Amino acid sequence: MTLRRPTIGVFDSGFGGLTVLKVLLEIIPDADYIYFGDTARLPYGSKSVDTVARYAVEAAHYLESHGAELLVIACNTATALAFDQITAAARVPVIGVVDPGAEAAASVSKNKRIVVVGTEATVASHAYRKALESRGLAAREKACPLLVPLVEEGWIEHAVTEEIVRIYLCEAFADGFHDADVLVLGCTHYPLLKPVLRRVAPAHVTIVDSAESTARAVAGRIGKLLNRGENAQEERRSLPRLKFFATDSVDKFRRLGERFLGHPIEKVQHVDLKE
Amino acid sequence: MTLRRPTIGVFDSGFGGLTVLKVLLEIIPDADYIYFGDTARLPYGSKSVDTVARYAVEAAHYLESHGAELLVIACNTATALAFDQITAAARVPVIGVVDPGAEAAASVSKNKRIVVVGTEATVASHAYRKALESRGLAAREKACPLLVPLVEEGWIEHAVTEEIVRIYLCEAFADGFHDADVLVLGCTHYPLLKPVLRRVAPAHVTIVDSAESTARAVAGRIGKLLNRGENAQEERRSLPRLKFFATDSVDKFRRLGERFLGHPIEKVQHVDLKE
Repeated sequence: MTLRRPTIGVFDSGFGGLTVLKVLLEIIPDADYIYFGDTARLPYGSKSVDTVARYAVEAAHYLESHGAELLVIACNTATALAFDQITAAARVPVIGVVDPGAEAAASVSKNKRIVVVGTEATVASHAYRKALESRGLAAREKACPLLVPLVEEGWIEHAVTEEIVRIYLCEAFADGFHDADVLVLGCTHYPLLKPVLRRVAPAHVTIVDSAESTARAVAGRIGKLLNRGENAQEERRSLPRLKFFATDSVDKFRRLGERFLGHPIEKVQHVDLKE
Repeated sequence: MTLRRPTIGVFDSGFGGLTVLKVLLEIIPDADYIYFGDTARLPYGSKSVDTVARYAVEAAHYLESHGAELLVIACNTATALAFDQITAAARVPVIGVVDPGAEAAASVSKNKRIVVVGTEATVASHAYRKALESRGLAAREKACPLLVPLVEEGWIEHAVTEEIVRIYLCEAFADGFHDADVLVLGCTHYPLLKPVLRRVAPAHVTIVDSAESTARAVAGRIGKLLNRGENAQEERRSLPRLKFFATDSVDKFRRLGERFLGHPIEKVQHVDLKE
């Protein structure tokens, strides 16, 4: 019996998707990974449906052409705006971040009232609200456009960040959502802000990290591709193969990416999608 | 004698260049304008030289092909990183924002010590430092990556914005630059923050708005294209013709752009540079 190590393609507009990859590496170490960060065109969060869909489909094709057998759209904006277009364009299975996040929220909420924080574009798409309402939950979505720049500035534990989070959450939990008992992190940058979000959010609130939920959904799906066998020559290679592609500076990707992935990044290859 | 209304092409990664256009409209009303905002790929401020140069040259060609007789690079990042490439690629004269800003700073500074605030990429290029040092001035450059997102969030007069500006300026005016007497706004978003910058900057500091300095440099250059005559049939058309191109959503351009331009924006045309 041969052992198959599947190749999982992970896509994001930039660095945030590395928080998904981080969890994937922990829970599915017996796969290889290729990651595509569209850093020359980030952020997607403030852009229109048409533009985001075009970019995301290009990225999906790029990952497929490099051997991805499963695509993880590790970007809330791309999932929220273009999941159907990506699925239609791809030849391999596609998993986005919205459904796993909504599913996790549904499973932990007692009073069925959820607050979702995300980028401007994710919130405007109402993808989370639709996914939550279809599961019988009420949702308040709140755009927090300053949080991504704060994370990228490295102000993870800064008084200003805490103040901005307080302003955003105060608005999010107002007007009928005081009793919401789940906060969904609808942007893959936000896991880096979990400590401050935990301090500021009401004590009764459970935080659902859609990056984590998505990795677990991938683990469920990937079982079919994994084929653990006796002939374990491959098995001895304990670490997954990792390859990174970025459309802007590879140096910057390496430098900033480490903060999201939690360990050093090697082998970043520059991609020019116009070539 | 015929009257010539020259067409001036103004280019920015997004909305900031509209602060330059605003001053141009005030001081050169007898020209027509075409504005190109590369909103599908903004911001440039966090991207690499190669990527910014490629984008900027594409935008320059687009404006030339639509009749621009003079190009204004109303974006500090594009000027700082790619002025030479744009000038080499263009067939018409090109004016950037860095030299006019440096010139204005040199003319008002008494002690020849200047603080420049801008995006990460503008600061990393040291374009302002080089332009100021060549005029015999010492420069401290300070990247302020949160200011553009704050302006776009609309938090112009917000306590958090004032606090962030205080942190940035405190670092900028430290270590030998306490006595700097000019603050150059090296990003075309920053004119919207002038009131808060004025409150926070040391009282003896003069603020130089590179958007304003650039418009004045254009006025000096454009004299040759303008040909005021007796036969003033055209002259009766008191308002300049304005045309806007944007690579992302035209609705968003209209909505957000008004904040920068200070009056309503009509006639925005979507451009797909890959077409």
